[in-house]
This record gives sequence, structure tokens and C-alpha cells, in this order.
Amino acid sequence: MPVQPRTPPGVLELLPPQQLAFQRMLDTIRRGFERFGFLPVETPVFELADVLLTKTGGETEKQVYFVQSTGALKEGKAPELALRFDLTVPLARYVAEHEHQLNFPFRRYQIQRVYRGERNQKGRYREFYQCDIDVIAKDVLPLAYDAEAPAIIHGIFSELAFGPFTIRINNRKLLRGLLDSLGIAGDKHAAVLHEVDRLGKQARPEIEARLAGDGLELAPAVATRLLDLLTAHAGDSRGALAALRAFEAPTPALTEGLDELTRVYEGTLSLGVPEAQLTIDLAIARGLDYYTGTVYETFLDEHPRLGSICSGGRYENLAGHYTKSKLPGVGISIGATRLFSQLLEMKVAGAQAIAISQVLVLAVEPGLSTVYAQLATELRAAGLNVEVYGGDDKLGKQLKYADRAKVPLAVLVGTREQEAGIVKLKDLREGAATREYDLARAELVATVKRLL
Amino acid sequence: MPVQPRTPPGVLELLPPQQLAFQRMLDTIRRGFERFGFLPVETPVFELADVLLTKTGGETEKQVYFVQSTGALKEGKAPELALRFDLTVPLARYVAEHEHQLNFPFRRYQIQRVYRGERNQKGRYREFYQCDIDVIAKDVLPLAYDAEAPAIIHGIFSELAFGPFTIRINNRKLLRGLLDSLGIAGDKHAAVLHEVDRLGKQARPEIEARLAGDGLELAPAVATRLLDLLTAHAGDSRGALAALRAFEAPTPALTEGLDELTRVYEGTLSLGVPEAQLTIDLAIARGLDYYTGTVYETFLDEHPRLGSICSGGRYENLAGHYTKSKLPGVGISIGATRLFSQLLEMKVAGAQAIAISQVLVLAVEPGLSTVYAQLATELRAAGLNVEVYGGDDKLGKQLKYADRAKVPLAVLVGTREQEAGIVKLKDLREGAATREYDLARAELVATVKRLL
Repeated sequence: MPVQPRTPPGVLELLPPQQLAFQRMLDTIRRGFERFGFLPVETPVFELADVLLTKTGGETEKQVYFVQSTGALKEGKAPELALRFDLTVPLARYVAEHEHQLNFPFRRYQIQRVYRGERNQKGRYREFYQCDIDVIAKDVLPLAYDAEAPAIIHGIFSELAFGPFTIRINNRKLLRGLLDSLGIAGDKHAAVLHEVDRLGKQARPEIEARLAGDGLELAPAVATRLLDLLTAHAGDSRGALAALRAFEAPTPALTEGLDELTRVYEGTLSLGVPEAQLTIDLAIARGLDYYTGTVYETFLDEHPRLGSICSGGRYENLAGHYTKSKLPGVGISIGATRLFSQLLEMKVAGAQAIAISQVLVLAVEPGLSTVYAQLATELRAAGLNVEVYGGDDKLGKQLKYADRAKVPLAVLVGTREQEAGIVKLKDLREGAATREYDLARAELVATVKRLL
Repeated sequence: MPVQPRTPPGVLELLPPQQLAFQRMLDTIRRGFERFGFLPVETPVFELADVLLTKTGGETEKQVYFVQSTGALKEGKAPELALRFDLTVPLARYVAEHEHQLNFPFRRYQIQRVYRGERNQKGRYREFYQCDIDVIAKDVLPLAYDAEAPAIIHGIFSELAFGPFTIRINNRKLLRGLLDSLGIAGDKHAAVLHEVDRLGKQARPEIEARLAGDGLELAPAVATRLLDLLTAHAGDSRGALAALRAFEAPTPALTEGLDELTRVYEGTLSLGVPEAQLTIDLAIARGLDYYTGTVYETFLDEHPRLGSICSGGRYENLAGHYTKSKLPGVGISIGATRLFSQLLEMKVAGAQAIAISQVLVLAVEPGLSTVYAQLATELRAAGLNVEVYGGDDKLGKQLKYADRAKVPLAVLVGTREQEAGIVKLKDLREGAATREYDLARAELVATVKRLL
């Protein structure tokens, strides 16, 4: 009895047309990263468990996949290897390990899959692609690098053409300064910002209630004032900056954060990002305490429910677990698998017909196979992707194959065409103005290129 | 105390310049596959263990890596997941699982890493890339597809430019027919062909001794005759074919195999592969009994010790473990990690300086950062990869960064240039005829494109 062929739950395995669309999305992202001079890095899928899991406990460790060879499994030892659960820890390990061979500021991109032992539920993946860039400096990373990230996001999502999008930026130093100014104690900052981050996702009264409730106990007037300040100028970047400049009780952190945010905003505009697609949003905090300055989120205007599709920020120190060097950085990440699968479901991605082959050479006469091989070779030499149909199936079956493969053009040479020294070119695309061309053989390549 | 940052043994982690060279190699391979209309497929890194390990026992199973989440590990269960050890078993599972949604003949390429729990020794990788193509048909796969594989290999290795190479082809049906003709019993064929496969790697007397020795016990005259037949026309494809046609006692299998080999040879030549790079080599058997017809190997003429760098063949049935459909196929595989690391060591690959960024815009005056941003944006819009140096380091430090990054060109605009309405372009490449250009700003893009 055959074994039932099936994949484990929580992975996204695509059929070829969707894989092709996904591949093109990854190619666009990669090109966008390279356009700004980021260098490729790939790390092994598994790391030594003691290197990967330096942080003790927490949610992440629960979700780790451990790896053991058959031999190690039999010996019943604790696993030595674990699959990476993000690209940040491997980057930290990589930079620390190769510190003396890298050129700083070190700009790297990494497009690889990561693994999390998530509960099995819709939209949660156990294997998914992350597309990350980071700039890592030694000791000090100039603010100029913070202004690049939104320009890179803008370039990529413009080319991906998933519809209008907005990049929102903020600064956590500014937020913490604001909390200080409002008299909110430092040990409450992380929890308060966690609530702030829910603005736009939850109703404001709920958030206010939690800010004033158990644990945080902000005075209701302070909670109201905070949320007013953060949301009063939603969608109006210059208004938000002006309001903060006019704030009556600035702390040094607020002033510094405001200066940084202003410079990142202006710097991004000077890199050609239109004002309409870049918004200062004071309510963006990013959940993670990891970020210490600029933070980014990106939203598809027509699909707000997807949440942020590209996020990141600046952090103080990348690799404190592995080296004593101070390595500040700034980075962004695109969760490509989740984004693609959602856009696929909404038919925003993968809907149009794309094929690998641009031309299919049909097999009309077995005796002419050498002619077909030569035509295909000629077309390939001109940079085209070309298939020759093998074997001697009926023409109807060959054209059905072409239709399913979405090949736009087919070349047909039978005895009649061969004797007349011509080739027949069929335009198989829906709505093609002309369906068939009889061409001198010497015209084939140029005509194909013109039609595509 | 920081944890020592390090990778597990048996993985190839590259520094950025080498990663870039490796990435370009993979891109070339992918382009070569797409040129012939192969569709991309990616499968999850792990499969369900019962699906992956349908074949019982054997070397492969010993080398499997099993995967368990933290929870499953604590419960002490047998692992449900295992990392793929090749791309063939996942392809079989994929084709069987999605059989009714695929377009046959199904042409797929797959470029992913595979995992084997190898003993830790030089040249053995536990994680390595395979680059595979296969054409899978239902019931019958026309021989025309066998002639494509060498043409694809030829296209890829010509472009990779690792030096002269030769593709060797043979046919296992022919070999088995020949063994029949010589009176060698069918149950000895696999073992005899295993010995044949050692020709060129071991001394002929050793092989002859084993053929006549324990277990196989061929009559010494038969062993000699066999090896004579297989090696008499080494390097002379047409001579080898003629000798076999003249063979005095042909069996049906020999005649059929000879016909197939002749047609594949002629078909490959008609696809533009030069005769000098395609050799019929009767001594190629491929170790695996999996292959049943055409077999391929590829050698770098100047590096014979590397062995075959791209191999494959035709098989009867891909997915007998998963479906009752008969799915014959033909495919080839490039072990990219091993090949690259060997060529790297010999300085055949990765030796030349390549950079991601084509232009570095230097940060001469902090007050001119908007100008730098605009220049970079203009160059990027022209399709160039461009970096802007962030911060206000001394020019010497910036140029040292450019040198280490191997960036060919640098743009320099200080107060003087800005006031004069010009930009200074520096050619940083060794041996550049002109080191510096003063250009009108409008000439920058065209000049950069001309120089690169």
C-alpha cells in the first residue's frame, strides 16, 4: 500500500504558478535590497542550541525546533542543534563570529526561512520566509542610515504593486521622553508603550481603562493626555512635529527623539519617498523593548487588516550575548510567506497568468525534430525561455499543455512550412489581435521579441 | 561571559564576497534551468518522518536528521518530522500529492539545501545545496527529453566559466544488454556495474581482479572482454557506437539501449552542444540501480579529481511509494555547495573582486546630505546599485571602506563642487586609466554607465 503523500501542517507549499509569483516577489525584494548596496548573507538552518538559545526561557524557547541525527537520537542525548527561529539571532552570531573580517558599517540582507513550533492554526506558519536587512556599525551608527529603510521599503512595495501603501515612522526615545514629561515612572514605560501599540487595533476606551487600571494605575487625566498627544495629528506628519516642538515640558530624551524623528523624516523625503506615503505616527511603538530609536511600520492602505507588512527599527546593541563590542544597528523585515499567502487568498497576488516559458516549439513531425531543436536554440541564444514539446502527441494535446502552462507563444513547423522555408507563430494569449503569423525563419526571433 | 559565537561543524558559511560569488553561481544555474522552461518548486525543509522514510533501513536512514519541537521533546515521543536528505524524495511526494493539479510532462527545478548527518570530515557537508531538474511524465516519457539535459548542462557551465568541461553520456539498458550478451547473469548486473563505475578512479587490474574474484566470479576472459569493450573507444563517441553496432551477439536490450544512446547523442548535438564537449563513455554506469536508461556525468577537464560535477539519468518510476500512477522521469543534479567550496579552495571561483554596490556616494559635507541623497536616488533610478556613506568620518576612512567593499566608483561633492555645479567621479579600480573625472551633474549617470 502506498504511503499517503502529504506535508506537515503549518507549511506553505505552492503549486508552480503560485511558486513562480512568489519567486518573483522574493526577486523584487532582493533587487530592492541590492539597489541600496546590501550584501547577501546566508546562515545554516540550524545553529548550536547553546549558541541559539542564550536568552533564558520565554515564549521563543518554547517554540524552538530541535534537531538530532539518528545516532544522537538513539543515544538519548539532549539535542545539540536547533532550527533558527528568526534571522536576528543568526545575524548577531555571524557578526560576532566574523567581526574582524567584515567591513563596517556592515550592510547585509538575508532572505531565508525560519522555523517556529507554533500551534497549528490558520495564518500561523511553522516554516516561513523572512526578508531582512540591517546596517550594523561599531560603536556609533549615524542617523543617516535610519532614513534609508523607508526609501528601500518604498522602492520594493512600489515595484511589487500590491496597491497603495503608507510607511509610518516614529521614535521610541521620543515616546519615552514624553512619558517622562507626563510623570510616568520609567519602570512602567514598557507596559505603557505596549498599550500604546494597540491604538488602531483596539478601541481607545479599552486602552485607557487598562492604562488607568491595575498594575499601571496612571491618573485618568494623564492617560487621556497621553493618548490625545499621540493621536491628535494622525496622518499629519508636520502637525505632529509642530505639536511636539510646542510641548510645554520637554525632557532631554523628548528633545533628542524629536530631533532624530525630524531628521529621519526629512532624510527619507530627500531620498525620493513622496510625502503622501510617509507618515509620522506617534502611536507606533513596536511591542519590542529591543528597539531604542526610530521604528517603522508599513500598511497596505486597502488592506489595513493585514497589519504592518514590513516593520523594524533601530537598536542599541546587536550581539551583546556573543561579543563585548558594541554593535548598534537599524533594520527592517518582511514576513514574505504570510504576506504572500494572504495576498494570494485575496487574489491581490498570484492572480495573473505567468509562465516560465515564453515560447513552446510544437512537435508536428517526428522527422523534423532537428529543426525544432535548432529553432529553440536560436530563441534561447536571444535570451528567451523556450520549451520544445517532446514526443509525438496530437497537436490538440500539445496545445492543451501550452494553455495550462500559460505559454504566450507557440512555434509550429510542419512539412508544408519546412518546404516553404517559413515558420508559423501562434499567439496563444487571450485577446491577441492576430492569432497566427507566417514568418520567414529569419524573422522569428525579432517577431517573438516584438510580441512579448 | 558572552557565549562563543560559532557554527556547527559540516556547514559552509561564507563571508559576503564569497557569498556573493556563490549567489551568482546559483543565479546562473537557475537562469540556465529557466531558459529551458523549467518551473520552480520549493518544498518544506522537513517532511513527515513516515512519508520521508518509506524505504526501510540503509545508509540514508542512518544519516537523517530528526526534528522535534520543545513540547514533543519533553513528552519523549518519537520525532514526527525529519529534514530532507535529497530533493528526489520530496519531488516524488510533491508530484504524487499534487498529481491532479500539475501539467505533464512536468518540468521542475528545485534549488534548496538538503541535510545529512555525515561524519565530520573535510569535504563532507551536513548541509548543502542541490540544484535539480527533472521532467516527469505520466506513463511514457519521450526520449527527446533525455537529449535536453546535456544541453542545459552545457549552457550553465559555459556561462559559469570554470574552464573547459566534458559531458559524458551512456545508457544503462545498453550496459545490461551487453552483460547479457556476455553471459553474465542478471543477478550479478548491479554488482558488475558498480565495478565498471570505478573505471578511471581505480587501476584496471584491481577491478578485473574483483570481477573475477569472490561473489562475482566472472571468467577472466569475460571480465577482460567486458572492460575492453567499454574502454576501447574512450573519447571517440562515433567509434564506440560503431563498435557496438558491429557487436556479434546483440540482445534486444543492447539494440534498444544502443538506439536510445545514438538518438540522445544526435539530439544533444542538434541542440547546439559541440561534439568536442559531449562524449559517449561506455564506462559510465552511475552507482545507483535507480537509473534505467540514459545516464550523465560532467567533468571539468582541468580538475578531474573533482569527479562528476553534474550527474543524473533516466528512471522508470519516480513515486511508487506514494501513488499507483507510473511516473517515469529524467533529471540531473548539481551539488553546488561542494563544487563551490572546492573551486573556492583552488581559486577557480570567488577569486575576482565583486561588489554589490556599483557606486558609493561619499559624505564630504554634512550640510550637503540632501544632495547626496538626490544623486543616489538618480543613480538608483537608472538601475544602479548605490550606497551613500552615512555620518561624517574622514574621507580617508570612507575610501578605505570603499576599497574593502571593492566598490568600483565613488562620487564626491564638496562645497567647491557644489558651487561649481559639478560632481567629482573617482574610478577606484586597479589599473583605471583615468582616476578622476569632473563632470557636469547632468552627465553623471551616463558616465557611470559607460565606465561600468
